[in-house]
Amino acid sequence: MSVSGEMILAGRAVRGEGPAIRAVDPATGVAMAPDFPAATRDDLDRACAAADDAFAPFRTLAPSDRALFLERIADELAQDGAAIVERAMAETGLSRPRLEGELGRTTNQLRLFARTLREGAYLDLRIDQALPDRTPPRPDIRLSLVPVGPVAVFGASNFPLAFSVAGGDTASALAAGCPVVVKAHSSHPGTSELVAKAVARAVAACGLPAGVFSMLFGNGAEIGAGLVTDPRIQAVGFTGSRAGGTALMSIAQARKQPIPVYAEMSSINPVILLPGALGRRGEAVAKAFVGALTLGAGQFCTNPGLLLAIEGPGLEAFVAGAAQAITASAPATMLNQGIHRAYCTGVQRLFAHPAVTRLAEGPVGDGWVCRAALFGVSAADFLAHAELHEEVFGACSLLVRCRDAVELWSVLAALEGQLTIAIHAEGTDDQAMAADLLPLIERKAGRILFDGFGTGVEVCDAMVHGGPYPATSDVRTTSVGSMAIDRFLRPVCYQNTPDALLLAALREGNPLGLPRTSR
Amino acid sequence: MSVSGEMILAGRAVRGEGPAIRAVDPATGVAMAPDFPAATRDDLDRACAAADDAFAPFRTLAPSDRALFLERIADELAQDGAAIVERAMAETGLSRPRLEGELGRTTNQLRLFARTLREGAYLDLRIDQALPDRTPPRPDIRLSLVPVGPVAVFGASNFPLAFSVAGGDTASALAAGCPVVVKAHSSHPGTSELVAKAVARAVAACGLPAGVFSMLFGNGAEIGAGLVTDPRIQAVGFTGSRAGGTALMSIAQARKQPIPVYAEMSSINPVILLPGALGRRGEAVAKAFVGALTLGAGQFCTNPGLLLAIEGPGLEAFVAGAAQAITASAPATMLNQGIHRAYCTGVQRLFAHPAVTRLAEGPVGDGWVCRAALFGVSAADFLAHAELHEEVFGACSLLVRCRDAVELWSVLAALEGQLTIAIHAEGTDDQAMAADLLPLIERKAGRILFDGFGTGVEVCDAMVHGGPYPATSDVRTTSVGSMAIDRFLRPVCYQNTPDALLLAALREGNPLGLPRTSR
Repeated sequence: MSVSGEMILAGRAVRGEGPAIRAVDPATGVAMAPDFPAATRDDLDRACAAADDAFAPFRTLAPSDRALFLERIADELAQDGAAIVERAMAETGLSRPRLEGELGRTTNQLRLFARTLREGAYLDLRIDQALPDRTPPRPDIRLSLVPVGPVAVFGASNFPLAFSVAGGDTASALAAGCPVVVKAHSSHPGTSELVAKAVARAVAACGLPAGVFSMLFGNGAEIGAGLVTDPRIQAVGFTGSRAGGTALMSIAQARKQPIPVYAEMSSINPVILLPGALGRRGEAVAKAFVGALTLGAGQFCTNPGLLLAIEGPGLEAFVAGAAQAITASAPATMLNQGIHRAYCTGVQRLFAHPAVTRLAEGPVGDGWVCRAALFGVSAADFLAHAELHEEVFGACSLLVRCRDAVELWSVLAALEGQLTIAIHAEGTDDQAMAADLLPLIERKAGRILFDGFGTGVEVCDAMVHGGPYPATSDVRTTSVGSMAIDRFLRPVCYQNTPDALLLAALREGNPLGLPRTSR
Repeated sequence: MSVSGEMILAGRAVRGEGPAIRAVDPATGVAMAPDFPAATRDDLDRACAAADDAFAPFRTLAPSDRALFLERIADELAQDGAAIVERAMAETGLSRPRLEGELGRTTNQLRLFARTLREGAYLDLRIDQALPDRTPPRPDIRLSLVPVGPVAVFGASNFPLAFSVAGGDTASALAAGCPVVVKAHSSHPGTSELVAKAVARAVAACGLPAGVFSMLFGNGAEIGAGLVTDPRIQAVGFTGSRAGGTALMSIAQARKQPIPVYAEMSSINPVILLPGALGRRGEAVAKAFVGALTLGAGQFCTNPGLLLAIEGPGLEAFVAGAAQAITASAPATMLNQGIHRAYCTGVQRLFAHPAVTRLAEGPVGDGWVCRAALFGVSAADFLAHAELHEEVFGACSLLVRCRDAVELWSVLAALEGQLTIAIHAEGTDDQAMAADLLPLIERKAGRILFDGFGTGVEVCDAMVHGGPYPATSDVRTTSVGSMAIDRFLRPVCYQNTPDALLLAALREGNPLGLPRTSR
């Protein structure tokens, strides 16, 4: 399981001929062997051509056969798990337990989609039977969702496994029947290579066309933009910064044929601390909050970056508890120099902001480490300063002190779209307040949770990891959970079609045995 | 039931104060009373504000109550049917039977969504129950689709009822729980007023907030663009030209918060005539083709604007039959002067094109009438001249003569996205050829039909009226059939939420009795 600097180009391990990068150990700042030469435009073209060629055979696979393929990827990843985790630790600074957990989540994700495929409800099969005696006669009409075509996936830096080469976007696109071309994230190229090779082995073992999967190295401007403009690519999955996501959206919209971009971008994940909850369990909430805030150096899309609370003794006790826990928190290595630099800039900006007070900071550490931070601001100042609504990626949070429920409502109303909004509520007064806020909260976020924090994202059928812009580019979707498959499907209907020419799922007699609604 | 020139602004009938237009009878070219003054920016602002205010109460209605509302709209339309059809005839030049049929389709559409609401599967309710003993424990997570917010709908000229004020976009948005602000099409303002007043009566009769529905007059640049840029509007439904649709897409993408635009734009709806079908029933196909081509002066999105066939005696017999039927066809009044002018220009462009030959033209008529036309071109020339792939809206079609199946495949592959592709096939050779073409056809169109033409669009569960760009702006959707409701929904999940605070559809005990999947 050695890392050699190779990409996967339609089944073959190849070295790029573009400019090379090396991975950097963020704990030491030292670059590691080997070189990872970038793909050329020719490589990109070949990967997209192979994906396009693979589309027809891949999509006609029975869902149960694609399920076997996903399970095989999971098996291959599990088999190489030790090497993958080892390399990912060196490339990301994340801990072994975190990465082992993330690997488990990645394989679970693949297995969840395998189950989704076997159950088949995701195809939304509908049959309107012919009514020859009606005036006018109704023809036989049958609908299935079908895959959109080859998909480009961008690896994310903060989930080197679960949102990278074989992560949620890749798993859901492959599940849908779409070949995938991944642009690896430059922060963890060795991890990407190991994972890509595991996927390629699964492709070969299942006898699938090699173009079903490719993984390329390269930068965003050249290979990333090249992928999104390639006419064979029909959808894009991305998790990263707002600047990166909106750039891809613009490129995709400017194509001769615009395509959907599913970009999961930025979110400050407001946490609403209601008075009853603060009064009765403020200290426990403070401790749990700092745990969620500092988890993985705060490098989660669902990190609690904003607290909304009403002034009062409960809030002061919470602040004291949180400050104590933050002061006692350990500095943690961040994913890379760029993220560390952006974090420091963001914290410094808050520190220097005339309307903002510093409530607590964690201890200083060496290297690219995250020093947790909590700041405070009045609701009036928060409303007056839109720059305070921006995400600081890392373990930094801003407490907005509201005079009353009305002001809290105004602050919520002024926020942009979010992935999650959490509410801590205890007792009937809090519940009544929560009930008043919920209609507004639901317009602001894709996931609403009580008495917890958004950092644990369960991979299941009911999960929504999405939300209004700019949390994501497409509020109609989720990137976690089985519903993520919907992003890569489109409806097609067949009218008056000879049975032999229908998609197997739509044929009379239902040879695949999938659920269908028929009238 | 007189037409007075009024708009509906959140329940009130009001006169605009902007520049006035009059409807023009396209059969005579004569302008009709009364004046229809356009909305001002203030009217627009009030309509959007009222829609936004109405959103919270409207969306919390039980689906079965929204079903009653839709049925009430259908009843009110049926009650005013005679007046509506009368005015629509004068404003559009369409025949009474056509408009009576279209009114029936419009009310059927509303009733179909009522059924969809009562059945409740459209909400995709999912429950992942808490697993407190798992490591780590799983919280209770519940998902529902929820409405996106206020929707802007643009009335279409070619379906003054079924795709206008209370047409498919409005019906599906209201069904989803989204208030609607309609910009009426300037071609049929009186029809729009009558329909809007029927909807407003239904709003009042059902005791709904008045902002649930508004209908404004005005031009695209001012009122249309103003609607799409209004921050309260969360999605747009449009049926019309490619220029109009892409303009709305650009405006929606340039917003601070981009929103989805569902634009159904242009399609030439290729019809593939395979040799067996031509040989065995070429004459019948020719007759049916001309019937579909000339129906409603060819002013259907699904009008058969392109024929693909392989050279041979069967094709020559088809051409002779089609030419005869076209020569015998009656000239028919088009919807308005602009459409008539664009049709004449398009036909003239084909006539003057050096690679194109004229195969048949219908008789000349007086006024803004459509003279049916059939042109021919070789596959090689068609491939060499992209301008020949453009839609000529009206009863004009272009036959592409292919040397063989390979060339036919190349022509198909070169086409842009389409709403429909039809295949006429007879016998085993044709079936084998169709089987080879189908994977490509499926990538090009949302609806595939055998041995017919796309002009009859059944309103049912399995219908897809959509397709790859530029047929529509969003290949993932349909604008006809019950699946059209999906366009105005987004998923939200609730985690660990007190039962009393959950959406009714998600509560323990399932008080609404809707279908849910639970694990």
